Amino acid sequence: MRDVYIVGIGQTKYGEHWEKSLRSLVVEAGLKAIEDANIYSRDIQAIFGGNMSAGSTIYQDNIGSLISDFSGLSYNNVPAMRIENGSASGGAAVHAGYISVASGLYDLVLVGGVEKLTDVSMEDQAEVVSGEVDQEWELFHGGTLAALQGLMARRYMHEYDAKREEIATLPVLSHEHGSENPYAHFRNKIKIEDVLNSTLVADPLTMLDMAPYSDGAAAIVLASEEKVREIKPEVKIKISGSAISSDFMLLQDRENILNLKSVRISTEKALKMAKLDINKIKVFEVHDSSSIMGLLILEEIGVFPRGKAGKYIMDGYGHHDSKVAINTSGGLKAKGHPMGATGIGQIVESVIQLRNKAEKRQVPNADKALAINIAGTGSVSVSHVLEVV
Amino acid sequence: MRDVYIVGIGQTKYGEHWEKSLRSLVVEAGLKAIEDANIYSRDIQAIFGGNMSAGSTIYQDNIGSLISDFSGLSYNNVPAMRIENGSASGGAAVHAGYISVASGLYDLVLVGGVEKLTDVSMEDQAEVVSGEVDQEWELFHGGTLAALQGLMARRYMHEYDAKREEIATLPVLSHEHGSENPYAHFRNKIKIEDVLNSTLVADPLTMLDMAPYSDGAAAIVLASEEKVREIKPEVKIKISGSAISSDFMLLQDRENILNLKSVRISTEKALKMAKLDINKIKVFEVHDSSSIMGLLILEEIGVFPRGKAGKYIMDGYGHHDSKVAINTSGGLKAKGHPMGATGIGQIVESVIQLRNKAEKRQVPNADKALAINIAGTGSVSVSHVLEVV
Repeated sequence: MRDVYIVGIGQTKYGEHWEKSLRSLVVEAGLKAIEDANIYSRDIQAIFGGNMSAGSTIYQDNIGSLISDFSGLSYNNVPAMRIENGSASGGAAVHAGYISVASGLYDLVLVGGVEKLTDVSMEDQAEVVSGEVDQEWELFHGGTLAALQGLMARRYMHEYDAKREEIATLPVLSHEHGSENPYAHFRNKIKIEDVLNSTLVADPLTMLDMAPYSDGAAAIVLASEEKVREIKPEVKIKISGSAISSDFMLLQDRENILNLKSVRISTEKALKMAKLDINKIKVFEVHDSSSIMGLLILEEIGVFPRGKAGKYIMDGYGHHDSKVAINTSGGLKAKGHPMGATGIGQIVESVIQLRNKAEKRQVPNADKALAINIAGTGSVSVSHVLEVV
Repeated sequence: MRDVYIVGIGQTKYGEHWEKSLRSLVVEAGLKAIEDANIYSRDIQAIFGGNMSAGSTIYQDNIGSLISDFSGLSYNNVPAMRIENGSASGGAAVHAGYISVASGLYDLVLVGGVEKLTDVSMEDQAEVVSGEVDQEWELFHGGTLAALQGLMARRYMHEYDAKREEIATLPVLSHEHGSENPYAHFRNKIKIEDVLNSTLVADPLTMLDMAPYSDGAAAIVLASEEKVREIKPEVKIKISGSAISSDFMLLQDRENILNLKSVRISTEKALKMAKLDINKIKVFEVHDSSSIMGLLILEEIGVFPRGKAGKYIMDGYGHHDSKVAINTSGGLKAKGHPMGATGIGQIVESVIQLRNKAEKRQVPNADKALAINIAGTGSVSVSHVLEVV
């Protein structure tokens, strides 16, 4: 398999885009990525589009076509596919794009993800977002994504004797980073008490534990070795590991609901491909669809010991200038969570860090990054390792 | 890129499966394919799932996970992705699976596609199925998929001075073949007058010009050279060409609404990969979502001259024992059209022909096949060339 590089990035602001459509959002991000790569649209040989919910929000499928058409790429009859893996759709689209370049089939590929949630009512949003858990065995019985994560948080507190405050540390950290990211949905700082006193969503989790429903899009351009030599980016960034894994969709089927096996396996695979130890990595973008999911991911991959992630974050770990930098983008909590874009947005942030362009949230000497994008309660996990080479 | 082989096939009967769910259908087809390949489920290294409409029919996304979980493959944390390209979702999933084996990443991959349309009302089905045309610029203004195809048929008659009867020849042929396929949705034979006198759907097309809404699933197992040597299938079948292409999603944007540019390009690419001329191929499975689409595809790839496909079929071309065998499965018209499964089902039929197991509909000396799966009015086209090697 050939080496694959990231030569362009683009994103819209995440938030509530009442005035923009699904298609205009993804085109905005895609064209920014093409411009950033300093290439022409006609150079793109294939598109991989990440999107979760356009079928259930606006009855629009065939999203690959839509993206190619409205980006003006149908003039070239460019191959375009939609990848859907729930909230991990973006990461999975990057993985699919990665394989297509690694295989030798394409040399220059656009990966773009998008979600448009403000097209439907708040009630419908909740149902749409829970489309990634099992409709028949979970949702029908009240097991929304939030409810399941509440169960996991309660179990976490019981199992590890963890305090509620510890779980609230990650949203606080995310908002602090988000306040420095102009593309973030929320740019206000919050305190632990704010999280604790916010509206209850699924006991013990409150509104400020949960990532918002966001509109937004993100895109990257992938290139082969040959193309990266032509393009000559200022900083040469390689995808040195890319892997996807699954777990039981139903929480009830897992041996231990606090172990995210898919996350462990996809990350181990990606690190193995990159021939890297986790300790060599300083930049982490992890999927904090809620505080508890973010903490469990960080513990599963060994950044923090089990049951201790909150304590470490309370002690100052996770800030962009600490030993490990976590969710400098603001994470899903503050940057926002447009599902199809989320996993691609994590990689956009990682590239910004590796290019040393993150300004006030810059991680000193950032040279390696790990992004982890999951679906549901961990039914899918996609891990990407990026390195400056 | 490495060679890729098909070592297993499986399908459910297409039709109205009131008693079966989306998940049970795809598991049935997947397990049949695994059994047919004479391997164990645990040997499967990745899953590529084709599905168009579960988001809009049952609010269920994250279909990759669902398939992996209910096939029992989440025990192995097997990577699973959903590919969605409207009615071309199945073909696109095969293409994605093909790339993943060709790249060297995986050696044994399951591609499974499914659609379950009887979960929603007839009215909703029409909206769901039109999810592959542009909601804002076509459907909203009455441009359903059927209406657009009606326009194309009317133009076809005008442009080529073709008779209505000529367009009706393909459904008659499809039903004749379908009558011999135990997996087909419809097994009755029909006559040209039946097509002409059937209920009008979109002038000039009637109900018997249109493929039905079907439930169903189909699956194949792909293998690398190394694995195919282990498995030792009775007939060794190679995917010698696999390509996907796009066109303007909106019919109104195309230079000529009778030219299916995506079909031409994906087929030319696939034939070039296979180093084959179209004249060497005898077995064709083409996407007759309506009679007119099937005829346009056959003309676009040069099987028949433009405007003459119906005349040729009237003269006996297309039957399984004629010079070119078209839709021996019964095509989308008679075998049925469960969108996510359709493109995979075309390949299942091609493999049955190349294995010489098609009984009464067997094409004599079948050794090469071409399957073409499209979305909408040709916004996406996926072409696969299969060969006995």
